[in-house]
Amino acid sequence: MPSVSMYAPENFPDVHPGMDLPAIIVDVLRNSHHTPKTGDILVVAQKIVSKAEGRIVDLREIAPSEKALTLAREADRDPRLVEVILREARAILRVRPGLIIAEHRLGFICANAGVDHSNVGGGEDVVTLLPSDPDASAQAIKRAVDEAFGVDVAVIINDSHGRPFREGAVGVCIGVAGMDPLRSYVGMVDRYGYVLRTSVEAIADELASAATLLMGQAGEGRPLVVIRGIAFQGGERGARALLRDPSRDLFR
Amino acid sequence: MPSVSMYAPENFPDVHPGMDLPAIIVDVLRNSHHTPKTGDILVVAQKIVSKAEGRIVDLREIAPSEKALTLAREADRDPRLVEVILREARAILRVRPGLIIAEHRLGFICANAGVDHSNVGGGEDVVTLLPSDPDASAQAIKRAVDEAFGVDVAVIINDSHGRPFREGAVGVCIGVAGMDPLRSYVGMVDRYGYVLRTSVEAIADELASAATLLMGQAGEGRPLVVIRGIAFQGGERGARALLRDPSRDLFR
Repeated sequence: MPSVSMYAPENFPDVHPGMDLPAIIVDVLRNSHHTPKTGDILVVAQKIVSKAEGRIVDLREIAPSEKALTLAREADRDPRLVEVILREARAILRVRPGLIIAEHRLGFICANAGVDHSNVGGGEDVVTLLPSDPDASAQAIKRAVDEAFGVDVAVIINDSHGRPFREGAVGVCIGVAGMDPLRSYVGMVDRYGYVLRTSVEAIADELASAATLLMGQAGEGRPLVVIRGIAFQGGERGARALLRDPSRDLFR
Repeated sequence: MPSVSMYAPENFPDVHPGMDLPAIIVDVLRNSHHTPKTGDILVVAQKIVSKAEGRIVDLREIAPSEKALTLAREADRDPRLVEVILREARAILRVRPGLIIAEHRLGFICANAGVDHSNVGGGEDVVTLLPSDPDASAQAIKRAVDEAFGVDVAVIINDSHGRPFREGAVGVCIGVAGMDPLRSYVGMVDRYGYVLRTSVEAIADELASAATLLMGQAGEGRPLVVIRGIAFQGGERGARALLRDPSRDLFR
């Protein structure tokens, strides 16, 4: 019977800038008595990747530009935060009081261009940015885990994003190594012989969502989830493959 | 250590109109040697719910209206299919050759208003519609399982929907019983004492996505997934709670 297990090691250490996150993950896995196997998928929370990589900004050191001051009035947000959002963003897509939806330089469309206050530490004025290159971050973790345990795993960096039309945020993949983030059924045959024409499944996003269920957001301290039992194809297209070309997007 | 298991019973019978799906699910669970427990979440594929409820249309019996003929030319689709889409839709939101994105009468925004060819059986001319009331379908399954096993489970009906900005479809919840589909972290404190202000997680969608990973779309015949180990709150707001009020949606 097809079955899947997900587990989240407890007591993940607090992560600070400059720490070697791949080595920490290897240690946590060693101590968890759940040795990773080939085919496992490790999902790692964006927040600890950003912190380890020093992607932290103290808003007390930020001088907002004129543009930030204007946008901050429109959005009813801290101008220093808006300045950081503008630096992270390729474009500002929608604004209303309390909400700025931006296209991050990496192409992700999300609130505040991924700039976030929660689970950072350091007080109200400290925020995290997305990792500079989340696919590379995932690659580094994959390399360390593969070498330490003699396995071949996939690694996903996940974050929680809101979306149009539906309430609530869901986990999505912002970086990936060792797997193709999409699973295509095009040309395959359903159980009645019908040839599937358009079905492509964003399995890396579904895995990111599944892991988010276990991670929590309120200090549970479970930024690493290991998923076992999901078949996937290798590939190194990275999370970019999950981003729709703007010219093909009917909702831009 | 927090852990989650998901399993999909094999050999789920072929479902036809008029069958008692809740009773079939009880039988499959009995034979799977995985007795459900209180707190389990059963995820059921929309396709078998629609089939059991007779939500099947033979396009050979459909006479397209003028409106359908016009839209069919614009979308380069079968006018009879477009007629069915128009009957299911509250509004047509976007059209391009090969693609019609509609708001279904129930409020879901998805391709073809949920009208779908795959995994139906009966040939190229037969399509399924979404269940008339997926929350009620979930309630009926919950009642049957709760009674048969003396438990209190949650039930989600899932479907795969595309979304703006990102490639690939992901599993989403279109009907739910026995759980609140949203988990709010607002007012909770992160591990550093920061009070979370906006975090609401669409856990029913994340559970729907997790189950989709196991279900497959190419005739695997796994339309039922049981998820164990995810904490959730009770509630009967239904899948409507997942739909953003159009007046609050910046992408309409």
